[in-house]
Amino acid sequence: MRGTALPNRLVLPAMVTRLSGEDGRVNDDVRARYVRFARGGAGLLVVEAMAVHRSKSGPLLRISSDDFLPGLSDLAARCHGAGPGKVVPQIIHFLKISRSGWRQTVDMLSAEELDAIVFDYGQAALRARRAGFDGVELHMAHAYTLSSFLSRLNPRRDAYGGTLENRLRLPLRVLRRVREAVGDDFMVGVRFVGEECIRNGYTVLDAGPIAVRLARAGADYISLSAGGKFEDARVIPGEPLYPYTGYSGDRCMPGASYPDGANLHIPEAVRAALRGEGLLTPVIAVGKIGTLALAEEVLATGKGDMIGMARALLADPDLPNKWRLGQEERVVRCLYGNVCKTLDENFKRVDCTLWPKRLGQAPESSDTVPPAWPQGGPGLRAEYSQGRVLLRWIAATDNEGMYGYQVLRGEGESGLLAHHASVRERSLRFEDPRVAGGRTYRYAVRPYDLAGNRGPTSPSVLVSVPAE
Amino acid sequence: MRGTALPNRLVLPAMVTRLSGEDGRVNDDVRARYVRFARGGAGLLVVEAMAVHRSKSGPLLRISSDDFLPGLSDLAARCHGAGPGKVVPQIIHFLKISRSGWRQTVDMLSAEELDAIVFDYGQAALRARRAGFDGVELHMAHAYTLSSFLSRLNPRRDAYGGTLENRLRLPLRVLRRVREAVGDDFMVGVRFVGEECIRNGYTVLDAGPIAVRLARAGADYISLSAGGKFEDARVIPGEPLYPYTGYSGDRCMPGASYPDGANLHIPEAVRAALRGEGLLTPVIAVGKIGTLALAEEVLATGKGDMIGMARALLADPDLPNKWRLGQEERVVRCLYGNVCKTLDENFKRVDCTLWPKRLGQAPESSDTVPPAWPQGGPGLRAEYSQGRVLLRWIAATDNEGMYGYQVLRGEGESGLLAHHASVRERSLRFEDPRVAGGRTYRYAVRPYDLAGNRGPTSPSVLVSVPAE
Repeated sequence: MRGTALPNRLVLPAMVTRLSGEDGRVNDDVRARYVRFARGGAGLLVVEAMAVHRSKSGPLLRISSDDFLPGLSDLAARCHGAGPGKVVPQIIHFLKISRSGWRQTVDMLSAEELDAIVFDYGQAALRARRAGFDGVELHMAHAYTLSSFLSRLNPRRDAYGGTLENRLRLPLRVLRRVREAVGDDFMVGVRFVGEECIRNGYTVLDAGPIAVRLARAGADYISLSAGGKFEDARVIPGEPLYPYTGYSGDRCMPGASYPDGANLHIPEAVRAALRGEGLLTPVIAVGKIGTLALAEEVLATGKGDMIGMARALLADPDLPNKWRLGQEERVVRCLYGNVCKTLDENFKRVDCTLWPKRLGQAPESSDTVPPAWPQGGPGLRAEYSQGRVLLRWIAATDNEGMYGYQVLRGEGESGLLAHHASVRERSLRFEDPRVAGGRTYRYAVRPYDLAGNRGPTSPSVLVSVPAE
Repeated sequence: MRGTALPNRLVLPAMVTRLSGEDGRVNDDVRARYVRFARGGAGLLVVEAMAVHRSKSGPLLRISSDDFLPGLSDLAARCHGAGPGKVVPQIIHFLKISRSGWRQTVDMLSAEELDAIVFDYGQAALRARRAGFDGVELHMAHAYTLSSFLSRLNPRRDAYGGTLENRLRLPLRVLRRVREAVGDDFMVGVRFVGEECIRNGYTVLDAGPIAVRLARAGADYISLSAGGKFEDARVIPGEPLYPYTGYSGDRCMPGASYPDGANLHIPEAVRAALRGEGLLTPVIAVGKIGTLALAEEVLATGKGDMIGMARALLADPDLPNKWRLGQEERVVRCLYGNVCKTLDENFKRVDCTLWPKRLGQAPESSDTVPPAWPQGGPGLRAEYSQGRVLLRWIAATDNEGMYGYQVLRGEGESGLLAHHASVRERSLRFEDPRVAGGRTYRYAVRPYDLAGNRGPTSPSVLVSVPAE
């Protein structure tokens, strides 16, 4: 893209960390988090959204003035030094919200304010280039300003609202200004939602043409999210509305109750729209893609050109390197239990619940000695009660430090055991509520240490769930 | 199914008509509506939900006592006399709601009340058999009692809530009682939602096992809807909550902003779950399936065994006969503009907006003379303004009576013209907001009369949409 080649197709999409302070500057925690991601080998790292403007907000990175350049330059340089991935910041404009429940909407913006948004995006993108990043990603997704213009619920009645072309007007102005600012040899990606997942919202029927328009106007890649809107956010009196807390938030970060690749219809449809117009713009697919098999299938079936994974890389930043080395079975697998999402919703530091406590980071180790079961074995027991299977076992031991356990499950008496859940080190139990009457399940557990080394799989146990 | 063979795979799913009165009896309007559907040739007609219990409600058919048998028997006999389709009533239990916004939830039901629900379903199913229907469909979908048990939000903390098996307990008791009541030679179908489409709701991951459990317990077919829940219904002070008014209602009846076949991932996943267990139970796919090509694709790719279409059959009950005779181009095509959905939400008689006014029914005619354009032709003109293309033309004439116009659209100067919209007879204009800058569109219109005969396609006109 514009002369920039990615070392692989794995992408860390922008993901809030809540590590930044009120001052908007890159601090030690932010730096450590992204350097850790870079070390893991992802091909493209998108640094969490940073504001293009000076509007008040909670803790958030900023790129709204040259004052932020030294910290951003240092971040870019350190990421480049840590791994082969290219690094781009996501740049964002957002509107005002208040604890009264009021929020500014796009119809309140004057012509001068629209001009300022366009201007600020251009300046911010240029700063991204000056800071040494490999490109910039324009945030047109979720509940923020440019997404609210693209929205089918955009309430403006002038040339910036109503029809699809009008809804695209400001986002296209922004993109063109950014391109002018950074020149033709700098990667500019766009992220937007392929489906709003709210009442009267748009679907892939609009997302296809939106992507085509953005690609024609010079977007180098299209990264597709879903939902994450204000319109269905949970109302908590005295708290400002927070997107991602309603159904559209569920669809944005599909959790354990969703099938893998829950949003793949979006990149599939959008990519088809682009290709139908002869545009080769790469498309980033996201949404609960956590296994090599699914990632390969997405590429093989043309549902996407790159694989975005936020939660899976939070759980194990080393996933790209492990996949590259053929060590998928060493990956610490995301639960999709969305503890990270809940931390974010509560404005807390976003860590992975699987990480050993107080580390504040995914562990790293070059140890090669796997854990072992104690003498007498893992003692795995299973019992069924009231629609749940309860598993218990005995702690494994490790020379360096235990990390956790994989629960493996198979269906039927001789069903193939496959990864079913990840369990933290201290929890020597697992409850499985996803069982159906009249069926038999086979379970086993497997310990892993801080380096991801797997110990031996326990002997399996069978549980029959009564039909009545 | 249980010795009942359907003449074809097209299904009229249960669809509220608002034609019934407070007394719950089959009246002339109800009879006319279903006889009209039967005449059109659908293979399975599911008569709109009728209550198994005596709870107060708005106008609604009832099957809660033998008093209703004569009317129901007459309805079944008349439908059988009118067409080849098999006819089953959908039977429903619902909880109480009030204008205060209060609604009864499943955790308020006592053990005796659960027993009564089971009993009432059994009695109602037996009545369906005695009335001469070909089977019965158990309503376990949307916002109603059995669906609320299946829901991932089921709040009960006893054996009827929490885990999937517990959530299934009452629905399975109902199904078993119904089977006992009607015997082994009577078709019993089940309709439930494959995806709740609400915050924390279930997805196909639960729908698969639910279908397996229902099929094992004797369900003869599985009909899959989506959404339609209370949890996200719009709150209108002083009005009882009505499902289908929130996002989950959009997903239940995907409108013009959704792609065709918007919910096909649901029957696909559920059917795979059934087949994976060796169950051959047929699956009914629904959700904006309105063309023969898509219906054939659903069958060919194993996304479903039968095709449910409510709105498309409302627009043209004769669609099955027309498809059978190779006359797809005579079908009056649903707009998916959801005027019918809005009528329902406003508790008004559910007609199709395409029907000629005051007919209260889809027109029928054996006329074979197609409409014609007046001397000088259709005078089709197109202009672009502010993200919209506006088409205008001159009225066609017909020997018997004009019905409406198809708008055809192609992309690019020589793009293939395909059906784009249906326009009512009196409206000689069409606004197309779904156009993207930098592209050229080709439009034509084609008149059709009350018999569905098409007149000549107008000469096409080109419109270029500026990129800026």
